[in-house]
Amino acid sequence: MDHARRLWQDIEKIRTEAPLVHNITNYVVMNTTANALLAIGASPVMAHALEEVEEMTGLARALVINIGTLSPAWIEAMQRAALRAKQRGIPVVLDPVGAGATRLRTETVHKLIEAAPPAIIRGNASEIRAVLYAEQGTKGVDSRHRSEEALDAARALSERCGSVVSVSGAVDLIVKSGSVIRIANGHPMMPRVTGLGCTATALTGAFAAVNPSPLEAAAHAMAALGIAGEIAAERASGPGSLQMHLLDALYALSEKDVHTRLRMETGL
Amino acid sequence: MDHARRLWQDIEKIRTEAPLVHNITNYVVMNTTANALLAIGASPVMAHALEEVEEMTGLARALVINIGTLSPAWIEAMQRAALRAKQRGIPVVLDPVGAGATRLRTETVHKLIEAAPPAIIRGNASEIRAVLYAEQGTKGVDSRHRSEEALDAARALSERCGSVVSVSGAVDLIVKSGSVIRIANGHPMMPRVTGLGCTATALTGAFAAVNPSPLEAAAHAMAALGIAGEIAAERASGPGSLQMHLLDALYALSEKDVHTRLRMETGL
Amino acid sequence: MDHARRLWQDIEKIRTEAPLVHNITNYVVMNTTANALLAIGASPVMAHALEEVEEMTGLARALVINIGTLSPAWIEAMQRAALRAKQRGIPVVLDPVGAGATRLRTETVHKLIEAAPPAIIRGNASEIRAVLYAEQGTKGVDSRHRSEEALDAARALSERCGSVVSVSGAVDLIVKSGSVIRIANGHPMMPRVTGLGCTATALTGAFAAVNPSPLEAAAHAMAALGIAGEIAAERASGPGSLQMHLLDALYALSEKDVHTRLRMETGL
Repeated sequence: MDHARRLWQDIEKIRTEAPLVHNITNYVVMNTTANALLAIGASPVMAHALEEVEEMTGLARALVINIGTLSPAWIEAMQRAALRAKQRGIPVVLDPVGAGATRLRTETVHKLIEAAPPAIIRGNASEIRAVLYAEQGTKGVDSRHRSEEALDAARALSERCGSVVSVSGAVDLIVKSGSVIRIANGHPMMPRVTGLGCTATALTGAFAAVNPSPLEAAAHAMAALGIAGEIAAERASGPGSLQMHLLDALYALSEKDVHTRLRMETGL
Repeated sequence: MDHARRLWQDIEKIRTEAPLVHNITNYVVMNTTANALLAIGASPVMAHALEEVEEMTGLARALVINIGTLSPAWIEAMQRAALRAKQRGIPVVLDPVGAGATRLRTETVHKLIEAAPPAIIRGNASEIRAVLYAEQGTKGVDSRHRSEEALDAARALSERCGSVVSVSGAVDLIVKSGSVIRIANGHPMMPRVTGLGCTATALTGAFAAVNPSPLEAAAHAMAALGIAGEIAAERASGPGSLQMHLLDALYALSEKDVHTRLRMETGL
Repeated sequence: MDHARRLWQDIEKIRTEAPLVHNITNYVVMNTTANALLAIGASPVMAHALEEVEEMTGLARALVINIGTLSPAWIEAMQRAALRAKQRGIPVVLDPVGAGATRLRTETVHKLIEAAPPAIIRGNASEIRAVLYAEQGTKGVDSRHRSEEALDAARALSERCGSVVSVSGAVDLIVKSGSVIRIANGHPMMPRVTGLGCTATALTGAFAAVNPSPLEAAAHAMAALGIAGEIAAERASGPGSLQMHLLDALYALSEKDVHTRLRMETGL
């Protein structure tokens, strides 16, 4: 009940304040994540040129970095933006897309964490394991592990970087050293839409912009996306209509939806 | 009545002639604007490599430049394409996305205008003000001003560059030194879909390809998008379905829709 | 009947095995093709950096190369990935988007074919003619020819490269030196959605990943897309809803759909 109330407060805050969220993200999902941020009430901006990236971060209330389609110039831009965010004290959310699939991805994540430890690292179970163990063995960008199989890795990664680690899956885990929040919202068809993991990360940026607790922000983002996903799935006939209804559901998310649907538990 | 007749003529021309519109635009909206151009009946193409950009402009009937996700190589490509368009006498439509948010954006717009003054500059009120006053203060890519607050800036910018200036907002303003066209079509949910401003710019390219008057072309594009947006909004439950219905509505736009819905006024 | 049975077998294989398909494709359609691959049951990944492209190809069961928005670094990445695919013996599917529109595109296709002849070349009639005759005269990325007008070119190209050549159109032609498969599925509204040609190419990658015959794989992909497109068109009111229903239809494609709808003929 209290969880639902606090989640709803954050949604209202995003809608009222329309925080600017600066995204340096991958080509595949830019449109999807911009639309999700607009639907929830935030104001997305994308900029990656070395000539403007720090200035844009300077305007934003959160920075979202997603390594889904890397290249050297973009990595440099991500580092500069992360440093600027650190200077300004705004939260950085990092999505290690495909970490473990190639050395470039795993190493880039390590470099970014070193430059400026993110407030929140959000990935699937295989990615979180890959970041910690430097495992090479992720199959592309889809997870080969259930979220619980990444619990220990998430704890250790959180311990090491001081970041909240958010692991998406059938049950999402939000981990901060000692404590774990589990969120059982969502729908099994969601992984059949490209970029919903990246959308989770972008929404995490919006919640982090309005909530000073990275643990709550990470949990609220996964819960909002999961609830909207459930509502969308009830209306959808497949992944095409799921994506459309998801944006509508994020836009129309009501206090009642949050109170009746939220399945969030805090544990150890 | 006459406005509606002339708008409908242009729509029929686009559908019959399927003009090739060359777009150098941002990563976020490429898919959206290509789909809108196809839906209205034009033939979009995207190309940005220095090695081919002038050749592609050489095939097109209009060039659309949108600075939403800049980098140095893309700026160079935009300049070369603009010069080629000028040589060939085809219209250039420029969208100063996020001008005023960073120096790079404002300066790039100035550079592009100097290289080859566009037939039409189309942006939101904050962007148009930023281009004229070199104001730094746009909040990302969303407008902080109503369109009327950019009327003087639009007039002065039009005066300075010889371009038609098209300012989107609840009421769109199409400005050419002495005259102003106001269009009151559209729906308040439209800014919750990413890239509808960029879509307005792309459609402006399609209308400029078939209508030699930049003033009319700019007005007709805003009107067509506004009318389609209204139709879409009547069927939509949120921004996800709005975007889908918008493409359907552009595709199905009828003479009757145009005659019954157009709200366009010419003034001073 | 036998065609339908074999097509259905491949669809079931894709759904069971979820083959990783590595895409180096254009910015406009990345989201669309990733969603189509997920909808049919495959696992898409996108990566283009020279620092990781060969490693990613090393994980995949098929490589899809699409030249829709080229630049020099991407061309280099495509070549390296194609060589790696050749070494590993996984199929390469090449889409010569806009070949004939600019020299860069035509030459890049020639270079890629030389480096590692693709298992399948899939394009529209104008593109296939341009690749063979080095014709400059494609109008942007839309075809100016019917597929039958590219039959001789497709035969000659297949002869020269040893590739299967797949020509999309109202009737698709799948050509391998002596034999031709014709597929009459699909709907005339499909070209009004951007990236459905590119989607055909991406799906060809998924079928090539599970079927060792490039001829069958190419034919099955066009058939699956055509059937899903028909189903979608029956539910759609325009290109916006067509795209959404298409993803739903790919996801829900049933044995009955395949058996009742397939219009595939083998000839000479």
